Amino acid sequence: MKPEERVLSANQQFYVALELLDLDAMDAVWLHEGWVTCVHPGWELLEGWEEVRESWRRIFENTQRMKVEISNVSVRVENSTAWVHCVEQVTSSFATGFSTAWVQATNLFVKRGEGWMMVHHHASPIPRDEDQTVQ
Amino acid sequence: MKPEERVLSANQQFYVALELLDLDAMDAVWLHEGWVTCVHPGWELLEGWEEVRESWRRIFENTQRMKVEISNVSVRVENSTAWVHCVEQVTSSFATGFSTAWVQATNLFVKRGEGWMMVHHHASPIPRDEDQTVQ
Repeated sequence: MKPEERVLSANQQFYVALELLDLDAMDAVWLHEGWVTCVHPGWELLEGWEEVRESWRRIFENTQRMKVEISNVSVRVENSTAWVHCVEQVTSSFATGFSTAWVQATNLFVKRGEGWMMVHHHASPIPRDEDQTVQ
Repeated sequence: MKPEERVLSANQQFYVALELLDLDAMDAVWLHEGWVTCVHPGWELLEGWEEVRESWRRIFENTQRMKVEISNVSVRVENSTAWVHCVEQVTSSFATGFSTAWVQATNLFVKRGEGWMMVHHHASPIPRDEDQTVQ
């Protein structure tokens, strides 16, 4: 398998974890080090696996269901580092309603042994006319 | 000079180019390849140096002055790749007024020879109460 394919597979695992709201699956995707980082849409940087994990735990806790469709995927491998860009169409169900949002994501991975581990996720909102929140 | 210092210096050059609205300086910061990428706040991904450069040209053309203050800077070097996270406080003057915005940035660099070249810039808005636009 080419490195690009392995990276795209790791990227896919991230979105499976997200859609399943599965913290154990998220644990398996990320590198557990103090320097990993995450930017959720509209948030400031979170730093360190504990802080990043806690953010996913809270997001999962406050979401009933999440559907994520990925498009415009590109991947670049540079030695032991790789990054994926993609657009996420995220439909979330909460206790009070649901919302659909488009997000531009940068996902950064480093190679450890044979595996590619996520070390940074940067997601930013793409305003669209079709954006909607139903409460 | 440590690699981290060189990367932070390249990052600084990017913000000097931005503040000076200097396209030549921006040319010197970026790697000129078809796979470099850029996400401006609220934009979708731009791909390829030509498209990225054109976006800077237009932004500079439509801005009279720009003041950028950087804070919360962190850097990570992984072999021939490095990334910087920082918060940008951007005050822009246009023909019609000015605006101040806070932005969370991820800047990605690769090493070519002795130099660190920017290959990705991802900037996303951080909503703050103090955000203001005066028209």
